[in-house]
Amino acid sequence: MLQGHQSWIFPNKPVILSTGTVAGPFEANGAIAHDFDKLHDNLWLGEDSYEKAQKVLIEEAVTIAIEKEKLTKEQITFMLSGDLVNQLTPSSFAGRTLQIPYLGVFGACSTSMEGLALAAFIINNRGANYIATVASSHNAATEKQFRYPTEYGGQKPPTSQWTVTAAGAAIVAPQGIGPVVTSATIGKIVDMGISDPFNMGAAMAPAAADTIEAHFRDRQLPFDYYDLIVSGDLGKIGLKITRELLKEKGMVYSDEQFQDCGLLIYREGQPVLAGASGPGCSASVVYGHLLKRMSQGEFKRILVVATGALLSPLSFQQKESIPTIAHAVSIERGVNIE
Amino acid sequence: MLQGHQSWIFPNKPVILSTGTVAGPFEANGAIAHDFDKLHDNLWLGEDSYEKAQKVLIEEAVTIAIEKEKLTKEQITFMLSGDLVNQLTPSSFAGRTLQIPYLGVFGACSTSMEGLALAAFIINNRGANYIATVASSHNAATEKQFRYPTEYGGQKPPTSQWTVTAAGAAIVAPQGIGPVVTSATIGKIVDMGISDPFNMGAAMAPAAADTIEAHFRDRQLPFDYYDLIVSGDLGKIGLKITRELLKEKGMVYSDEQFQDCGLLIYREGQPVLAGASGPGCSASVVYGHLLKRMSQGEFKRILVVATGALLSPLSFQQKESIPTIAHAVSIERGVNIE
Repeated sequence: MLQGHQSWIFPNKPVILSTGTVAGPFEANGAIAHDFDKLHDNLWLGEDSYEKAQKVLIEEAVTIAIEKEKLTKEQITFMLSGDLVNQLTPSSFAGRTLQIPYLGVFGACSTSMEGLALAAFIINNRGANYIATVASSHNAATEKQFRYPTEYGGQKPPTSQWTVTAAGAAIVAPQGIGPVVTSATIGKIVDMGISDPFNMGAAMAPAAADTIEAHFRDRQLPFDYYDLIVSGDLGKIGLKITRELLKEKGMVYSDEQFQDCGLLIYREGQPVLAGASGPGCSASVVYGHLLKRMSQGEFKRILVVATGALLSPLSFQQKESIPTIAHAVSIERGVNIE
Repeated sequence: MLQGHQSWIFPNKPVILSTGTVAGPFEANGAIAHDFDKLHDNLWLGEDSYEKAQKVLIEEAVTIAIEKEKLTKEQITFMLSGDLVNQLTPSSFAGRTLQIPYLGVFGACSTSMEGLALAAFIINNRGANYIATVASSHNAATEKQFRYPTEYGGQKPPTSQWTVTAAGAAIVAPQGIGPVVTSATIGKIVDMGISDPFNMGAAMAPAAADTIEAHFRDRQLPFDYYDLIVSGDLGKIGLKITRELLKEKGMVYSDEQFQDCGLLIYREGQPVLAGASGPGCSASVVYGHLLKRMSQGEFKRILVVATGALLSPLSFQQKESIPTIAHAVSIERGVNIE
């Protein structure tokens, strides 16, 4: 149901019934390695291309989430999936394997929450029995497509971010035990004129601030309603700018209250420059690490603000600035029987 | 509301309040030129790249649809858009111009009905006041990306299809005067092993047949319920195969009862080989030509089955076969006050 200008509330309490998170070797050395369901010790996953490896990440994440609840894939009504690869190639091929009726979604790194928002809306309104929503990225597939093959060893400035190799899947259902998706805010495209693809955090910060402000305005909530606001992958620079933009609106958050998935996934000292990025970043950090901390009672209410830089190699070559977007989804415990 | 395995019914009768269709010079010489709201006499639309021209097609189609109903873009709750260009570049940049909260969707040429299905579901469940759903393609942008720049003059086999330069937009609303979106069926990915990107009609035919069968099974309708079933863009070859596949299931349709958007848009003698394709094909043929014929009383009930070939240049290079999908949406007159 629409609330305010651009938000949905979900009074029927769609539940995140289970999740599956799968990642690569770099994440296996990261700060939250123990929160993934499966870790791979090389980037190939036994495939002969990085894109096929990414397809396997998706298939595994969805399958793990399904099997945790002892469901079968025939019981899943729809699969929502998106990724950064041209024409969502890994998602489409995973959809072919899984044989679940499929909706492709795209919002660059905001894809994770675009998928969860739509899944929760559909479930809230009895449009499915179960939905699998999944977002993924693969470091080498992304580098090859957007920048240079990693084998070239190209150098990057300190403002750039490291694309996560991971897939995160959630099974959303009308009832059951799990955290509840309570609302979502769909973002507008914001472009403040930044055209440097090695500084996407700064480009995305105004979109994050815009969606957060819209969320609190639409839902008429006090700015400190959530125990944690977590951005998708703003990295160090984008996080700092977003906090400053919100401060100007009177929304002041501590380091504890406002964190970033792109700064949670890796260990201090891993060479990730300004932090992590990729649709698989927020998907796996939220569905793995953060929901685990929620289930342990650390947070009751979180707002996930997944940010996306909607550039393409083509728009960069055509000297366009970077359009950005952010979608926010609130996840709460204790609003339902758990 | 879910009906059967993979279909939604829309008891609250979401209405297609208005539409906007814009196309290029090749379509201006086609069979249904008079049904477009705006035609351009060259492929550039005053821009310096074909992708930017496609962005303008989207902006114009959405703006025309909004203005026909004397709405403003601030009144449109969400915009759903998708296209064939990497990372949905034209859609994202049109979203930046229009400043409507934005959801990117992708299903190749099935994008048109993926967008309409989701828009109708959201409107049916009071998730928006108005939604603009739009799909588009641009012949030269598509050729450049998937095949070769058109300037090369590459030759094609007779099984290949011609990508339409067009955008089709619909404004979906909870009430008002217009045809009603009554149901939708979300397709599964089907891949029968065809890997020739110059024969996408044959590749997509089994997906079309699968979704049509699912639609009638889920909705428990007689196979001749609709006055017209129209596929997105199967072309001559795909249409023939689909009809044969359905005949094997006992669903026999005449040439009048089952047509193809890819065969409606151009004139006999235009050099389009097996027919037209592209997300802009079904979007503009349905929202322009077919809804006009509906409003003139020619059809009361139509089922639009938009088919998509989910290949990418990369999956082709990696010698993969072509995963395909089809989404079906039923549009009916007389189920509401008009």
